[in-house]
Amino acid sequence: MNKLIISKRLRLIRQLLKKKKISCFLTTNQANVTYITGFLGHDNWAVIAPNNVYLLTDSRYFEQAQNQCPSCKIIQRKTTLHDSFAELIKKQKHLRSVAVENSISINDYKNLQKKTKVRFHTVSKIIEPARSIKDKFELSAIKKAIQITALALNQTLRNLRVGISENEAAGMMDYNFRKFGGRNGFDTILAFGANASRCHHQPGTRKLKKNDTILIDFGAEYNHYRCDLTRCFLVGEPNPYFQKVYNVVKEAQAVAIKLIRPRMSNKEPERAAREVIRKHNLPPYQHGSGHGFGLVIHEDPFLSVLSKDKLKKGMVLTIEPGIYIPGKIGVRIEDNVLVTENGCKILTNSVTKNYKDICLGKLR
Amino acid sequence: MNKLIISKRLRLIRQLLKKKKISCFLTTNQANVTYITGFLGHDNWAVIAPNNVYLLTDSRYFEQAQNQCPSCKIIQRKTTLHDSFAELIKKQKHLRSVAVENSISINDYKNLQKKTKVRFHTVSKIIEPARSIKDKFELSAIKKAIQITALALNQTLRNLRVGISENEAAGMMDYNFRKFGGRNGFDTILAFGANASRCHHQPGTRKLKKNDTILIDFGAEYNHYRCDLTRCFLVGEPNPYFQKVYNVVKEAQAVAIKLIRPRMSNKEPERAAREVIRKHNLPPYQHGSGHGFGLVIHEDPFLSVLSKDKLKKGMVLTIEPGIYIPGKIGVRIEDNVLVTENGCKILTNSVTKNYKDICLGKLR
Repeated sequence: MNKLIISKRLRLIRQLLKKKKISCFLTTNQANVTYITGFLGHDNWAVIAPNNVYLLTDSRYFEQAQNQCPSCKIIQRKTTLHDSFAELIKKQKHLRSVAVENSISINDYKNLQKKTKVRFHTVSKIIEPARSIKDKFELSAIKKAIQITALALNQTLRNLRVGISENEAAGMMDYNFRKFGGRNGFDTILAFGANASRCHHQPGTRKLKKNDTILIDFGAEYNHYRCDLTRCFLVGEPNPYFQKVYNVVKEAQAVAIKLIRPRMSNKEPERAAREVIRKHNLPPYQHGSGHGFGLVIHEDPFLSVLSKDKLKKGMVLTIEPGIYIPGKIGVRIEDNVLVTENGCKILTNSVTKNYKDICLGKLR
Repeated sequence: MNKLIISKRLRLIRQLLKKKKISCFLTTNQANVTYITGFLGHDNWAVIAPNNVYLLTDSRYFEQAQNQCPSCKIIQRKTTLHDSFAELIKKQKHLRSVAVENSISINDYKNLQKKTKVRFHTVSKIIEPARSIKDKFELSAIKKAIQITALALNQTLRNLRVGISENEAAGMMDYNFRKFGGRNGFDTILAFGANASRCHHQPGTRKLKKNDTILIDFGAEYNHYRCDLTRCFLVGEPNPYFQKVYNVVKEAQAVAIKLIRPRMSNKEPERAAREVIRKHNLPPYQHGSGHGFGLVIHEDPFLSVLSKDKLKKGMVLTIEPGIYIPGKIGVRIEDNVLVTENGCKILTNSVTKNYKDICLGKLR
């Protein structure tokens, strides 16, 4: 990972640490470790100490860490992460307290306390605010993930046949992500017909019929950055009811997207999308209207009527209203936007959602 | 999930809770929740209270929970998991303390303390000992996962071509798991040539050559139970060096498998496998020699020279020695065994590891 990018990220994070009077910070969260070190292996912790950033890893990953983290001091641990951390802390002069993330387990926390003489206290949202604003490296990886997603979807649609199971079709989607140089960024959701009314449906044995609907919630990962789209399709004969519901969801999404701009409350696009659906006398959806994504699939910002946060320039997020009527129909349309100076830019326009394009007609 | 199976599991766990004087136990670990309730959704907690087992879930999963958990009281939470748990605890008469797993985050733990008046204390290994001994339902799911894995491997080998990337070949493997009714039980590791010397290699852009070696660490999941195999293959011309290393690994594995029986220390098979490799003047491997698997891919028992545990009848585990020489070669052979009355049964014999069978010859 480029030294300049990492040092820019660290400058911001160190400012926040200084403001909070934190002289030493331990992160055990894998996405946060990746963000501040560039490391892409597993089972590792990172420490921001006054003079250095340390990565604690083991012999399996030492070579990889040396290649990926030119900005870090890499500690190849011979014992547990706890022991290795305790040893490092002993060497830091005048250090009295260490801040750890409150996502750490009780077990890890107690273990650390037992092994060192410094005081520990828990904090939250140290790295996450920086992560919610994407830098050039991150945006370029996300754009590439979207490119791969568009190619993989086209290929998958070409291969779909009546009689294929949801599970096999989801597997085809995931295979095509890899064929085009990525991989699935999360568990692909793929539902036929009324199964789409369960918004967290797990693809199963249900087979595609000659007149049917399809919902796919999918997105590739590239260089550990993801995207997150949902598209619906109609197979076979025209279906006026599906078309009506589809157009309401599309309208709700368009209204929300139109509102997105810096300093807008996270509540507003959420409220606006729901209002469109309510106006058409259709039921409200049970999930949020959008979320950030990047090194993990759900991260800040979250669009919610309970949120007290505001959108910022450089954030990327999904906009994904839906309509679900159990046993009947499920429609969701999900795009990815980048918050810009005066509004937002839709990043996923290469994946069509025009009604005529999502009607696949008669399949073999 | 069958009521009888769940009640048998709970009987054992309640015995342990009684012995430890725990009257109420909260699990926030998803595999543990599944084990004691049968529930397969996400974002849920389970509580073993004196008279009932409760599942806390939300509206998205309520219908699914009703179908999957006939033995539980299902609580459809309208607020957070913490609030919903606090409400439940208030209704339990004479309850003074609750045991939670020490894998819970500091944040969750503090939140629970704040919202209730009972005392909390942390425990570990309440559900895990029961989970390490597989019941009939679990064994049948694991056997089906192995069947799917064998079919998927055969299909993948038939489709392999010179020039395919590691990433695409891994995608093909995963697609074939789904084609045969399962899915990948973990991230498939697939490495060509010297890449296999990194035991946690992530499949990349390296392409298959006409004379090459392949390592695949793979296993399907069926009904949420996994298996975990590794096989190596030779493509093209005979390769005496590969053959020599392969046979040493095979011998090390056979020696370890021969030792497995109930009441044997977890150290013994580990030691024996390593001794074979040492004897041939080949380098020791950096990972464990085996581990249990089931609802998650790494669970009790763990074969390790540091372990103080003993094997028990009904455990399933992997046996997976390897030889890794950076820049040159990586060979691992991994099978799954069931500990029986007097020894063990290899569950993965349907996936050949004979040297002549793993030589694929000339590919197109």
